[in-house]
Amino acid sequence: MLIVLRSDASAADHARVVALITSLGFQSHTIPGAQRNAVAIVGNDGRLDAARFSALPGVEDVIHISRPYRMVAREWRREPTVVRFPSGESIGADALFVVAGPCSVETEAQIFATARAVKRAGVSALRAGAFKPRTSPYAFQGLGLAGLELLARVREETGLLIVTEALDEEGLDRVAEVADVVQIGARNMQNFALLKRAGRAGKPVLLKRGMAASLTDLLLSAEYVLSEGNPNVILCERGVRGLEASRTLFDLNAIPAVKSLSHLPILADPSHATGKRALVPAAARAAIAAGADGLLIEVHVQPDAALSDGAQSLYPEQLEVLMGELRGIAAAIGRSLPTAP
Amino acid sequence: MLIVLRSDASAADHARVVALITSLGFQSHTIPGAQRNAVAIVGNDGRLDAARFSALPGVEDVIHISRPYRMVAREWRREPTVVRFPSGESIGADALFVVAGPCSVETEAQIFATARAVKRAGVSALRAGAFKPRTSPYAFQGLGLAGLELLARVREETGLLIVTEALDEEGLDRVAEVADVVQIGARNMQNFALLKRAGRAGKPVLLKRGMAASLTDLLLSAEYVLSEGNPNVILCERGVRGLEASRTLFDLNAIPAVKSLSHLPILADPSHATGKRALVPAAARAAIAAGADGLLIEVHVQPDAALSDGAQSLYPEQLEVLMGELRGIAAAIGRSLPTAP
Amino acid sequence: MLIVLRSDASAADHARVVALITSLGFQSHTIPGAQRNAVAIVGNDGRLDAARFSALPGVEDVIHISRPYRMVAREWRREPTVVRFPSGESIGADALFVVAGPCSVETEAQIFATARAVKRAGVSALRAGAFKPRTSPYAFQGLGLAGLELLARVREETGLLIVTEALDEEGLDRVAEVADVVQIGARNMQNFALLKRAGRAGKPVLLKRGMAASLTDLLLSAEYVLSEGNPNVILCERGVRGLEASRTLFDLNAIPAVKSLSHLPILADPSHATGKRALVPAAARAAIAAGADGLLIEVHVQPDAALSDGAQSLYPEQLEVLMGELRGIAAAIGRSLPTAP
Amino acid sequence: MLIVLRSDASAADHARVVALITSLGFQSHTIPGAQRNAVAIVGNDGRLDAARFSALPGVEDVIHISRPYRMVAREWRREPTVVRFPSGESIGADALFVVAGPCSVETEAQIFATARAVKRAGVSALRAGAFKPRTSPYAFQGLGLAGLELLARVREETGLLIVTEALDEEGLDRVAEVADVVQIGARNMQNFALLKRAGRAGKPVLLKRGMAASLTDLLLSAEYVLSEGNPNVILCERGVRGLEASRTLFDLNAIPAVKSLSHLPILADPSHATGKRALVPAAARAAIAAGADGLLIEVHVQPDAALSDGAQSLYPEQLEVLMGELRGIAAAIGRSLPTAP
Repeated sequence: MLIVLRSDASAADHARVVALITSLGFQSHTIPGAQRNAVAIVGNDGRLDAARFSALPGVEDVIHISRPYRMVAREWRREPTVVRFPSGESIGADALFVVAGPCSVETEAQIFATARAVKRAGVSALRAGAFKPRTSPYAFQGLGLAGLELLARVREETGLLIVTEALDEEGLDRVAEVADVVQIGARNMQNFALLKRAGRAGKPVLLKRGMAASLTDLLLSAEYVLSEGNPNVILCERGVRGLEASRTLFDLNAIPAVKSLSHLPILADPSHATGKRALVPAAARAAIAAGADGLLIEVHVQPDAALSDGAQSLYPEQLEVLMGELRGIAAAIGRSLPTAP
Repeated sequence: MLIVLRSDASAADHARVVALITSLGFQSHTIPGAQRNAVAIVGNDGRLDAARFSALPGVEDVIHISRPYRMVAREWRREPTVVRFPSGESIGADALFVVAGPCSVETEAQIFATARAVKRAGVSALRAGAFKPRTSPYAFQGLGLAGLELLARVREETGLLIVTEALDEEGLDRVAEVADVVQIGARNMQNFALLKRAGRAGKPVLLKRGMAASLTDLLLSAEYVLSEGNPNVILCERGVRGLEASRTLFDLNAIPAVKSLSHLPILADPSHATGKRALVPAAARAAIAAGADGLLIEVHVQPDAALSDGAQSLYPEQLEVLMGELRGIAAAIGRSLPTAP
Repeated sequence: MLIVLRSDASAADHARVVALITSLGFQSHTIPGAQRNAVAIVGNDGRLDAARFSALPGVEDVIHISRPYRMVAREWRREPTVVRFPSGESIGADALFVVAGPCSVETEAQIFATARAVKRAGVSALRAGAFKPRTSPYAFQGLGLAGLELLARVREETGLLIVTEALDEEGLDRVAEVADVVQIGARNMQNFALLKRAGRAGKPVLLKRGMAASLTDLLLSAEYVLSEGNPNVILCERGVRGLEASRTLFDLNAIPAVKSLSHLPILADPSHATGKRALVPAAARAAIAAGADGLLIEVHVQPDAALSDGAQSLYPEQLEVLMGELRGIAAAIGRSLPTAP
Repeated sequence: MLIVLRSDASAADHARVVALITSLGFQSHTIPGAQRNAVAIVGNDGRLDAARFSALPGVEDVIHISRPYRMVAREWRREPTVVRFPSGESIGADALFVVAGPCSVETEAQIFATARAVKRAGVSALRAGAFKPRTSPYAFQGLGLAGLELLARVREETGLLIVTEALDEEGLDRVAEVADVVQIGARNMQNFALLKRAGRAGKPVLLKRGMAASLTDLLLSAEYVLSEGNPNVILCERGVRGLEASRTLFDLNAIPAVKSLSHLPILADPSHATGKRALVPAAARAAIAAGADGLLIEVHVQPDAALSDGAQSLYPEQLEVLMGELRGIAAAIGRSLPTAP
């Protein structure tokens, strides 16, 4: 951490900063400058709180040199995390992992038909929400426990792994009983109570990036899960708020940037990152080309009858075409995608 | 709602849109255009889900004409909501309501000293967190129940109303027992389970705007609370993520914009909206000049020793100067601010 | 265009809107609503100014249904624009077009060495600035006319097409004498005097998207060039300002979105869109996978000695590896990339 | 400047950084860290280009401690710049400076009527565009030289100072002959050729902040003008692109932040910063309360007939009410506003 002093900081201001560093058990190191001086803190492992210094008189700015996260950092663990399932599949190795399915479990017919369709296209896991976080209290909120039961039956029949979202602490335990991967949605990325519970869930956690979260925020949220004892966190880029309200910005750079900062695997969600079916295949191909470990993609057998997110759901035939393109791209960058059964 | 068709939409695409509108019990109304046609839905009260239409073939865009919220809308209730406390104070009337205090309850000495100082400056309520949501798992997380107990004792001694944050559903009930206003923080603005519980809490709710939330998002979150039976919601603008990582953007326009869209009162939090003590007084004055119903402002008797947010906390003497300026501004726009005792 | 009335608009407000529409020579069409009425304007080709209506009493909002641009719109011209060069190369056809080179022409040795290196890797054109727009008046501003002369000699020796930037109206004519493509930089995207001059330059124009420009803004700027008689405009996505100051957001979605809105070709600039050499290859691969017609990419024989943009310039060997990956991705989506000579 | 090394940087990487610092004539200063080392550059006055270092192997990041601007910085000149006019008025002193008028000069009748109206309300200067930068080539582009002539006649009759925009280099000289203040618009904030010409114009320059410009960008653009010999630069905050396409974000914090970084005066433009007449008075009051040196505000005698920006133009009666409120606010913070004549 670097404490930058104001150009008019007094010797007493300087001394106060140095004294606080010493009292916290670190060494200080003053760097004289043409415009202003700065004081470096030596020995901080990234977890020191900047607020103690930025409030002192004469302090202009506090600059982080160390990163505030630790267990998720590539600097602390060089080899990539590979999340492995008993079925033999994995996330984070050379083989890509594609999760597909509808936004919500709606009916038995709908979820089984969609599951069979995505299975035919060669995906590894089914995504579908039983509990849905909705911006409006008047929108469809999901089938709840009945939805979870349908998902359990789908897995039994198809062998697909199940990825589904938990909305609150109690619900998380119920979801974790059924799901192979517990999803934490973008709106809950900083619901720290939920993150801690996920850290004790005993199942891999898919953590979606919040709509205005920096990469540091995302990695600190993952750190909450790891620090409770769960090493199996999968990150997911799903687009951020940006210049134009009508379009989500798919933050493509986040994929290689996260890969350089962390050992955790990262998927991309081209459906939410675009919000429009016509843009989904391009974003999906781009994510894989950029190095994502897989995709989370919305598919519905009848998008125009979907109770939520129909506008961004692919038709099963579109998924099949896309999977073919993705195999070509994967090959071009030395990765692979399971072929359809 | 207006369904805009693509310029190459077929007659069958058009017919499909009209048929869906009819099947949902609404009337359709086609508007011919030079480039493309559009179909209006007549009779929608704003709660119809756009997704059903945007997924149909031939549909270019779905434009909302009605607003998706209802109970919070000024169109449904002309007169402003005034939240009244048994002590006689209120939020949303001509008199401004200033809440001040430290980010966190740290010690008995700290919280009592700060409470007395802000009381002397003439504020109506004390803010201080017992449960703290922190981006990093390694940061100070608050005193918890012990903090709540200290707040109860502060109220008893000083007569200040208490505003404090709830982080999860269970905690909310505990907070509601002690607090005069239950705060929902920016990171939880779309924690819908928490919003519903707040709707049944029996205490006024202070809802802070999320860091990337649109005003529609904010008002829909408030709608969750109202639709559970709690009409006493106070909104709070606290800055949004913007162009520069190092600076929060204080969205000043949100204050008059919310006032025109909703009957709910709105405060501003100039401390989080600036993040820097030197900018706080300017933002505080601006918020009042723009029509905010009051402020939520961080004050600490010893900011450089604060366990959190010290850099944006005012010294008590700065608060006193500021309160004087605010009285002048309030008078200039026909409002008032209680004088110091 | 749809004029949305306030819920409390009077009959006189309504009549005033209708009268203005009629007086402008269009037909009006009133749409009754549950919350409020709206009036559609029939016959507008997208060029009517909204301001006339949004200022009227009783008007809540003006919604554009027609798009404000015309000559650049895919709706007005279905087949894609292909920019063709006398040398036989083209931009916008199945074959991808890669432009590579240093940020600035620095010395004869530097520009010739880099040109030969990128030629070896199989690119079609050299990019290098003779005139440089720099945020700081103290930064290197380019070699000027001497730089242009070096570029002309490079073309003669290598056969590479030349892409270089014009900063002002007079300079544009000088640049157009030498360049095969005249570049308009992001900071000048709305320098309308410069756009008009580019519309009369007689050379294809590469128009880079401004750092906060919406796609509508970008297409309207292109419309300026086309409306002056120059149909050969190539768009370029280069990243936008976003959540984090330290990172540019590469707006990947802009590529397929522009393709659906316009017939103009679009390149991507992964160097500026990432700002960091380590992220460039991932963004370059993603852009091609998403459907870009080619790339504009910074390469320098000695990035650590570059006078500008060294941090985001690839080494020539990295370019060669990348070109190989791009060939595989192009093949996977039915496009091609010329092989190295 | 601080060069942060990667945690796996080699001794050779470190030595290379140190050698480059030395070769540029500065001293280096290595700061050992727990995670990584950093090297400070001592003696840099803020104008050193970071790119030289960020391209070196083993370099993680380059952090600016010195600021890249100089003549505009408060650190180089403590006392505020006051721009003084021969008429006795000034910008930047205790008295506020309000500029009002229509977006464009439209007709003789319109501009004279508006000028008289704003004069009556007590403003110091008239704003009105003769040359208009328009996003669409089909929108009204201004009266040009005929507009300038009308402005000259308005000044003669009313004694109002004239603020009007220049769009290109040649035009700037014509504008400077007539105008008391030459305006550089947001879209041209980084049109460096225009900035340099403005630096030699012999008239004060009003520099509007670009829609995605950081404060550093803004101050560097001002530095272009000062470094050409013109010390009379007035900055103007006019809103930035943000979360929601339909709303501009008025960056209120920019006002006190610029005041602390620079000695230049700053106005606010509440008309463009809100885009909606109903929000303008609140934003205007807030800007003054936050410490702006004045306002640039759109007023039109008949907004619903305006050829541009009618939706955000105040009626003259609204301006009069607003001026009254502003006088009260000015008094509350120790400033003044001239009373109506």
